[in-house]
Amino acid sequence: MEKIKVAINGYGNLGRAVELAVGRSADMELVAIFTRRDPADLETASGLAAPSSEMARWVGNIDVCINCGGSATDLRDQTPEASTLFNVVDTFDTHAAIPQHFAVVDQVARENDRLALISTGWDPGLFSLNRLIGESILPEGETYTFWGPGLSQGHSDALRRIEGVAAAVQYTIPNEGALDRIHAGEHLELTTREKHRRECWVVLADGADGDAIRETIVSMPNYFADYDTTVNFISQEEFDRDHTGMPHGGTVIRQGQTSEGTSQVISFKLALDSNPEFTGAVACATARAVARMAAEGQRGAITLFDVPPAKLSPEDPAQLRKRLL
Amino acid sequence: MEKIKVAINGYGNLGRAVELAVGRSADMELVAIFTRRDPADLETASGLAAPSSEMARWVGNIDVCINCGGSATDLRDQTPEASTLFNVVDTFDTHAAIPQHFAVVDQVARENDRLALISTGWDPGLFSLNRLIGESILPEGETYTFWGPGLSQGHSDALRRIEGVAAAVQYTIPNEGALDRIHAGEHLELTTREKHRRECWVVLADGADGDAIRETIVSMPNYFADYDTTVNFISQEEFDRDHTGMPHGGTVIRQGQTSEGTSQVISFKLALDSNPEFTGAVACATARAVARMAAEGQRGAITLFDVPPAKLSPEDPAQLRKRLL
Repeated sequence: MEKIKVAINGYGNLGRAVELAVGRSADMELVAIFTRRDPADLETASGLAAPSSEMARWVGNIDVCINCGGSATDLRDQTPEASTLFNVVDTFDTHAAIPQHFAVVDQVARENDRLALISTGWDPGLFSLNRLIGESILPEGETYTFWGPGLSQGHSDALRRIEGVAAAVQYTIPNEGALDRIHAGEHLELTTREKHRRECWVVLADGADGDAIRETIVSMPNYFADYDTTVNFISQEEFDRDHTGMPHGGTVIRQGQTSEGTSQVISFKLALDSNPEFTGAVACATARAVARMAAEGQRGAITLFDVPPAKLSPEDPAQLRKRLL
Repeated sequence: MEKIKVAINGYGNLGRAVELAVGRSADMELVAIFTRRDPADLETASGLAAPSSEMARWVGNIDVCINCGGSATDLRDQTPEASTLFNVVDTFDTHAAIPQHFAVVDQVARENDRLALISTGWDPGLFSLNRLIGESILPEGETYTFWGPGLSQGHSDALRRIEGVAAAVQYTIPNEGALDRIHAGEHLELTTREKHRRECWVVLADGADGDAIRETIVSMPNYFADYDTTVNFISQEEFDRDHTGMPHGGTVIRQGQTSEGTSQVISFKLALDSNPEFTGAVACATARAVARMAAEGQRGAITLFDVPPAKLSPEDPAQLRKRLL
């Protein structure tokens, strides 16, 4: 069988992760990495690099292009643009803007006879899928999402913007006690402060005032003021040793009743050593499905909600039924 | 919008559970309950009851028929038979016989222009789906399935067949310590005895010899000999008070690496107060998908692996994207 020809558009953390994932997929082949930088300056693991301005030359030689733009702003343009040329996958994750992004991509993809799947990954992505399945099976109930333990990029950035902070990360820690009670079927109304706490690990710049910085952090509106926040000061050495990974994860729980007093709990949990590598792995499996669904004639924009799960696997459907059902 | 017209074929624990679930689904309507018994003797919650010998009279008035035969043996005939008349869902759960059942149903359904989804529920069903998704995203890794804490019907039956046992249930209890270690990314090779233990609650008949019965149980091949089995003797009163529910559940874990030393763990867990009611709820959501996919022209046999998840929900796809993605 011919391999699925994949392109990566944008080579940051996510692009590198997709490159890894495609490399581990025997049925897929990476044929191009597009970059807005000078390809000569780009060191990719695969050695591939082509200027994104020349993407149009690849039409007909790429089954699916995975857009790995570093921010939601990138993808807002990158996905419609790439959809004029290729079948596309993206990880667009600005939840509130998804309907708008979907509408734009859907129109462009239809006009250009392409299939484009937006917002894959884990949230949006696998978490969304579990919310959907949970609600569909248990229509009367409650869905809870907890994030972490994991590194929050936005909150870490907020710490680093404080004067006197040389380096910093923030971990979001779910309230495990609340999780256990929900798993046991208890219905909880939780405030923001009760759901998660925030743990900061900060390296101070020379001469910085730790007490003042701690106060700035814990009182920072939107980011930390509404949470129980702890601030730990550590050395740069300790920081480099223990805090350079990008772990993340979380739990989606659907708690419902099928009859009066009969509680049923479905939960889905991720514990990830590397957030970008996992997102890249999800994007790679999604790309496999998109290449196949496009080959079968599907067009326009879709999401993971529209993908028959068997399409995510390289294996023959009869084998899947025999081995996994 | 017109409601999806549902029939139930077979009225045991599962049939009753599907009746409950359809009753809680605003977009579905129960129109018939077929039984091999005398309908006059059948007390259904909805008041519906029709002889299964007259099923053919309902052709054209049922969008999907949920086969609720009490055993895999029933379904082996019931599903192909019903597939000559209706689109069908079943919960066929003899894992080893699934390929054969699929082949038979596929042929009958195609010949009769029907769509039939086999082996929905949670295992096979949601657990299978999570095995598939886990493998597709993390191709290098290991899948673990733990069952329980929950009541095992087969093992409870085995206890009840022992002379001197008046009543009995058996609960399968997963090794929580092993589960925690796997969640933490540790790779474990577990023997049968290490994965689960078996807890028996037994009411002795008058004059029965407890010690002899305990010995018979713990040494019973296939059922108990390979496990750490505890036997508790209780009164009939205690049994009736604490052991008449049908709780079950379990956990599917996919543990993989996306690069050397980078561990990623996906886990899916069910904690069910009522095994049949949950299976019925899954069958009901599955029936919604089958009615829609059949209306779109799909034919033959399928499984949950082939169902785009959005089809399981009564909600509009745009709403789903906005609210859940």
